[in-house]
Amino acid sequence: MDIFDRLKAAATTDWQSYVDHDFVRQMAAGALPQAAFRTYLVQDYLFLIQFARAYALATYKSRALADMKAAQAGLAAILDEMDLHVRLCGRWGLSPEGIEAAPEHQATVAYTRFVLDCGAAGDLLDLYVALAPCVIGYAEIGRNLVPDGVDALGNHPYREWIAEYAGDAYQGVAAKARRHLDDLAARAMTERRFDELAATFGKASRLEADFWQMGLDAER
Amino acid sequence: MDIFDRLKAAATTDWQSYVDHDFVRQMAAGALPQAAFRTYLVQDYLFLIQFARAYALATYKSRALADMKAAQAGLAAILDEMDLHVRLCGRWGLSPEGIEAAPEHQATVAYTRFVLDCGAAGDLLDLYVALAPCVIGYAEIGRNLVPDGVDALGNHPYREWIAEYAGDAYQGVAAKARRHLDDLAARAMTERRFDELAATFGKASRLEADFWQMGLDAER
Amino acid sequence: MDIFDRLKAAATTDWQSYVDHDFVRQMAAGALPQAAFRTYLVQDYLFLIQFARAYALATYKSRALADMKAAQAGLAAILDEMDLHVRLCGRWGLSPEGIEAAPEHQATVAYTRFVLDCGAAGDLLDLYVALAPCVIGYAEIGRNLVPDGVDALGNHPYREWIAEYAGDAYQGVAAKARRHLDDLAARAMTERRFDELAATFGKASRLEADFWQMGLDAER
Amino acid sequence: MDIFDRLKAAATTDWQSYVDHDFVRQMAAGALPQAAFRTYLVQDYLFLIQFARAYALATYKSRALADMKAAQAGLAAILDEMDLHVRLCGRWGLSPEGIEAAPEHQATVAYTRFVLDCGAAGDLLDLYVALAPCVIGYAEIGRNLVPDGVDALGNHPYREWIAEYAGDAYQGVAAKARRHLDDLAARAMTERRFDELAATFGKASRLEADFWQMGLDAER
Repeated sequence: MDIFDRLKAAATTDWQSYVDHDFVRQMAAGALPQAAFRTYLVQDYLFLIQFARAYALATYKSRALADMKAAQAGLAAILDEMDLHVRLCGRWGLSPEGIEAAPEHQATVAYTRFVLDCGAAGDLLDLYVALAPCVIGYAEIGRNLVPDGVDALGNHPYREWIAEYAGDAYQGVAAKARRHLDDLAARAMTERRFDELAATFGKASRLEADFWQMGLDAER
Repeated sequence: MDIFDRLKAAATTDWQSYVDHDFVRQMAAGALPQAAFRTYLVQDYLFLIQFARAYALATYKSRALADMKAAQAGLAAILDEMDLHVRLCGRWGLSPEGIEAAPEHQATVAYTRFVLDCGAAGDLLDLYVALAPCVIGYAEIGRNLVPDGVDALGNHPYREWIAEYAGDAYQGVAAKARRHLDDLAARAMTERRFDELAATFGKASRLEADFWQMGLDAER
Repeated sequence: MDIFDRLKAAATTDWQSYVDHDFVRQMAAGALPQAAFRTYLVQDYLFLIQFARAYALATYKSRALADMKAAQAGLAAILDEMDLHVRLCGRWGLSPEGIEAAPEHQATVAYTRFVLDCGAAGDLLDLYVALAPCVIGYAEIGRNLVPDGVDALGNHPYREWIAEYAGDAYQGVAAKARRHLDDLAARAMTERRFDELAATFGKASRLEADFWQMGLDAER
Repeated sequence: MDIFDRLKAAATTDWQSYVDHDFVRQMAAGALPQAAFRTYLVQDYLFLIQFARAYALATYKSRALADMKAAQAGLAAILDEMDLHVRLCGRWGLSPEGIEAAPEHQATVAYTRFVLDCGAAGDLLDLYVALAPCVIGYAEIGRNLVPDGVDALGNHPYREWIAEYAGDAYQGVAAKARRHLDDLAARAMTERRFDELAATFGKASRLEADFWQMGLDAER
């Protein structure tokens, strides 16, 4: 059981409310309304800007050169993911200008600033635990969505998004993030601290669930 | 026109959505459901913990000794306000243990961490502008609620809360905060920066409006 | 053996270079040149401004209310210590204006900003360990200087300074800081982390020794 | 007159103490003792680790995507410069392991942590002004050292170092940094703030001069 599995086990309810959210189920069934997905896409772009800042914060807070390089690679990866995002948005009729001008939703503010504040107030481990539901969670959600492999998706309306997170490249990113979390925990996690970290992880998972909900609410 | 009035004028819609929110109107009419007020009270306590951190951040970011002392006085004032809050909660049947164990609502996370992040990313002026809708806004809301003075409140069910913010002590705190904001702006505000600050102020006002809404939603 | 004793044992050379520094020995013997002491006093005032910021940072980084209140008490205590300092400076012919206008010496910049950066990059424990050579160390130095009690100092030229740090009030502050450090370590210190903390403690002790040296060099 | 020239003019004495330092003059004359240069090289490597953190801090503090990308490019450039440095050290008989194990000198701690603290306490402009004596100053120093071009250096013992900073690539980096500083100042600099920024710039220049001095002192 690695530290990520321990965190999930300690925050099962919050975790399930996120990975099994109705948004995810409707997406899996191809039944998610396009308006919900578009709202999500726009907010997710604004989300990534703040996540790039979170990796920059991790770079700044690193004392070992290896940690610094790992964080900087995460930062570069997110700036790349943002370019992908702009292309995906384009296919859904959303222009870069329109996206950047969109106001941040409360759900976007809540999760992103929570993560940044965990990092500013705590240490590297606090920051990466707050990031984990997103970084590692998306890989789990992506994989769950394609039990028979990406090729079985056929003409699924959300094929592109699913393939991105279920694909080998992103799965590799998440696997690396898990190992990094284990390494940080081996260095700095006491058992008493685990409870605090599990609370952070649960709260972040709940804020991720709220983020899906924002997409669904947009459709009403 | 001081800087606070300029910010309000530049963000009228967001500002009005906050100070004229239905929660405030129902409170004024004495018609606000008790469940809504209780939910608000509990979250406001959790809110104050983060606001104490925001004043500590302002103290840390101060370079002039006078700024440092002003921020530290703000910090001490909030820790006092929290004691008041515990007493007020007690009268509404809420125990300190119950309050601190309550999970933070998304609306609480969103506004408080937004303010803290404005301060961490920007300078003192950014931080105080993000705080202003709360610190100075509550004085305006309090005053609006008692056009005929605190004594005219009679047996108003929310008399205690209203008297707190409409009272001379809090009005004085807010007046001082306005002058401090003017002083910071005289030192560090260019006209180009004003637009950014107005955007921060508008967003913070919107997040305050969402905070009232959370109270109303609790009642459903 | 509490955590402070463990840190001293792990960084003996650096620690001894600080607490047994020639500045301290000359002060003990009453032979320290007045110019050295005056230079020290002025820089120590500038030092305290940054230390007040460090306690504000600790308040900001606290997540438990008890940690927040402890840090805020430290902040208030330093602002008081600064007033004492101004009086002490006055008796040595140094005006408040003259002190605040003095440029910070390299040694002052190095130790204070090192502490602040440890706190910004790390967690509360990192910050308090970096502060410990000063906060707790001064109590040890003060006590060492008066083996026969404060009353035995007679007309010692540095009687006032020594009595301040050897006195019960400051000894109590340091004892409390030690217990707080133990409490933080019980929560968040792994054995692997101890080595990093000992390195921080040793470096901070060396920078304190450099701070004494700055006083002696001024005399040349 | 761009903002960098204004800062130099406002802090002439500190600036000259840095760019005309004896270390630079002896290097120009090829008379700098090798021990002085070696000490400098090792400390400069430790310096760059902290400067990478400063650019990460700038990335974190950026709110506009363009600022974020500029800062991240600075971060990547420093990580590259560190590789160059390792090669240069190798030619002077210094191994990477030896360098990273070297203790930071007081002068290294003072300048790097001062810069990081300016950034943490202030805004992007404060941070970049504190970085400017290094980032832009090295280009000026490099250019001054080769009035007749890099080719005229012949077998100069410090040819490689000089060519690095006098070369077109680094000159371009510095020119870009100057324009970025102008852009930030146009957005956020009031005339009252200029005095504070000039004080920061002067102090940073003095700390850079102390950094050269550390090299010379090593030789004694």
